[in-house]
Amino acid sequence: MQVTARRRKRRSDCPVHFALEVFGDAWTLLIVRDLMFKSRTTYGDFARAEEGIATNILADRLARLEANGIVDLDGRDYRLTQKGVDLLPIMLAIISWSAKYDARSAADRAFVRRYRDDPQRLEADIRKQLAEQRKATA
Amino acid sequence: MQVTARRRKRRSDCPVHFALEVFGDAWTLLIVRDLMFKSRTTYGDFARAEEGIATNILADRLARLEANGIVDLDGRDYRLTQKGVDLLPIMLAIISWSAKYDARSAADRAFVRRYRDDPQRLEADIRKQLAEQRKATA
Repeated sequence: MQVTARRRKRRSDCPVHFALEVFGDAWTLLIVRDLMFKSRTTYGDFARAEEGIATNILADRLARLEANGIVDLDGRDYRLTQKGVDLLPIMLAIISWSAKYDARSAADRAFVRRYRDDPQRLEADIRKQLAEQRKATA
Repeated sequence: MQVTARRRKRRSDCPVHFALEVFGDAWTLLIVRDLMFKSRTTYGDFARAEEGIATNILADRLARLEANGIVDLDGRDYRLTQKGVDLLPIMLAIISWSAKYDARSAADRAFVRRYRDDPQRLEADIRKQLAEQRKATA
């Protein structure tokens, strides 16, 4: 509901603002990360993620992700929609930036190297995997 | 100060989490946008942005951006550091995603087309412009 209310009085039509209305917080993209790269799909999976998300925040963010068409539900399993999968280039760019600037980063070096060498190829490979996962749960 | 405190007790070494500690909120990337694409450089410029950022939030986000090494100050002018300019691929991916999914998007169509046709070329062109701007204020 809150999502709809925010939409009605949007502050600008800037594309950066639009995106931040969807994921401009500390948690939403961690859930997207779990779905995209960690094969976590259920409320319980997300709740057990290493950052220790509070259950009320998790429930709120999942509801918003669904309201915004980033995820849908198949039984107890959350799945990325096409709109959600299309966040992949953003996620890859984020991972690459953090790998460069965080000395303690847990980013997989081989993964980051593959991204820098051929971002389009890596993106295509991950899109294929995600499509197969989605088919498997359908 | 708060930034340092958060660093000390980081919740994980995940690269997505690292990035969200820097810009996981509704405002930080709007300031980066202003610096990157709108030639806005001063506190007053950012305060006048279309989204109407509250002055206390603006002051907080500028302090964090500086503490995190994303911007530095030249007199009254904020400038993106190398670490800040390196957020460009993330910003471009965000703009492209919003242009696709927001029917009312103000994203410049020619700009988005250039990005989709040749992202590396567009990125290189913008990096060059930003370097020239930085030189001009130095």
